[in-house]
Amino acid sequence: MEPFDQEVVKRVVEQVISTELIEVEASGRHVHLDRETVDLLFGDGYQLTKLRDLSQPGQYVCEERITLTGPKGSIKNVVILGPERNKSQVEISFTDALILGIRNVPVRDSGNTENTPSIILDSGKNSVQLENGTIVAKRHIHMTPEDAKRYQVTDKEIVRVKMFGMRPLIFDDVVVRVNSRYETRMHIDYDEANACGFKKGMYGRLIKKQPGGVNQ
Amino acid sequence: MEPFDQEVVKRVVEQVISTELIEVEASGRHVHLDRETVDLLFGDGYQLTKLRDLSQPGQYVCEERITLTGPKGSIKNVVILGPERNKSQVEISFTDALILGIRNVPVRDSGNTENTPSIILDSGKNSVQLENGTIVAKRHIHMTPEDAKRYQVTDKEIVRVKMFGMRPLIFDDVVVRVNSRYETRMHIDYDEANACGFKKGMYGRLIKKQPGGVNQ
Repeated sequence: MEPFDQEVVKRVVEQVISTELIEVEASGRHVHLDRETVDLLFGDGYQLTKLRDLSQPGQYVCEERITLTGPKGSIKNVVILGPERNKSQVEISFTDALILGIRNVPVRDSGNTENTPSIILDSGKNSVQLENGTIVAKRHIHMTPEDAKRYQVTDKEIVRVKMFGMRPLIFDDVVVRVNSRYETRMHIDYDEANACGFKKGMYGRLIKKQPGGVNQ
Repeated sequence: MEPFDQEVVKRVVEQVISTELIEVEASGRHVHLDRETVDLLFGDGYQLTKLRDLSQPGQYVCEERITLTGPKGSIKNVVILGPERNKSQVEISFTDALILGIRNVPVRDSGNTENTPSIILDSGKNSVQLENGTIVAKRHIHMTPEDAKRYQVTDKEIVRVKMFGMRPLIFDDVVVRVNSRYETRMHIDYDEANACGFKKGMYGRLIKKQPGGVNQ
């Protein structure tokens, strides 16, 4: 066989990356806090301190950490993400749910916390019991409108993402969210990351769902 | 639309179940011990005590439990599976590997433990350091020759398995092992179980790989 023309290889690689591949990030457990919960945990009017920026513009990790407690156990040193939100929300994995002893944690889109389990937050200074807000985050893709056009997908479209690496799998039922405030990234949790042998910097390949493809 | 003929529905359901669906089991962390390690841990000539049978004929859970220790932590109360094997082997998840602080645990077929990390086992009575044997088990299907014929797959064939439920995904790179001593079951670990929202009793649908189907 003839050796490949390196220019052709380069163009093909660029094309594949630019049209189908999406950078994947694994999200560890974390909390989003509303104003009232910040007040209760850290004192009235307390301002959370930005430690470092996240990939999504305007989102950041705070210096402050927190302890989560459920009926069976606690997890210390949990990250708080800023800025404040309208409603406090705790995103954990099913592995965490087992440690905490919180049953029936649902898989939900961020912000959809109705009828989700209660959890206790402790700042070391004060403790607060959230009535609800405990979820396992549903896997999703943040996408810029430019990438949505390029990948030919629309806001809220359900796609698949194929992961390569040592435990290849295809995530089904991945929701795409298109917004000009986003950077294009897929977010999975640590259970999902472990299940596919995820390493930082990995890319997944976006696969559009075929209508009626019941066997796939 | 006409209502479906219930007899037809029943036949279709039976056909789908009999031809494509495979019962899935989640395997927790466990160890297999060789004679030498049983002697060292529990005393010369000690016989492990069967507690209950597993789905695979001849395989069972033992009454004895063990503590695993790595550079950063321990996990107590770990199950020993019988009968004894030719070589000791410790099957953990990536979540466990992080707790234990054991790096670079490879994803391997059972029995393939060459150049895998060391780990310490403790029975409460004695402690043994295995030179190697720590693996994350590669997902696989045990299959009877009858089912292999029915599903049209052969020993060592790589297939996909689609999981339904609240976190649908498709496991790629699933190896089928055909043996008349097996019961037909797919085995995944707890990270994989959490990633697909597994509940006991769930079935996956076997999908044969299409040659050249690079996009799928």
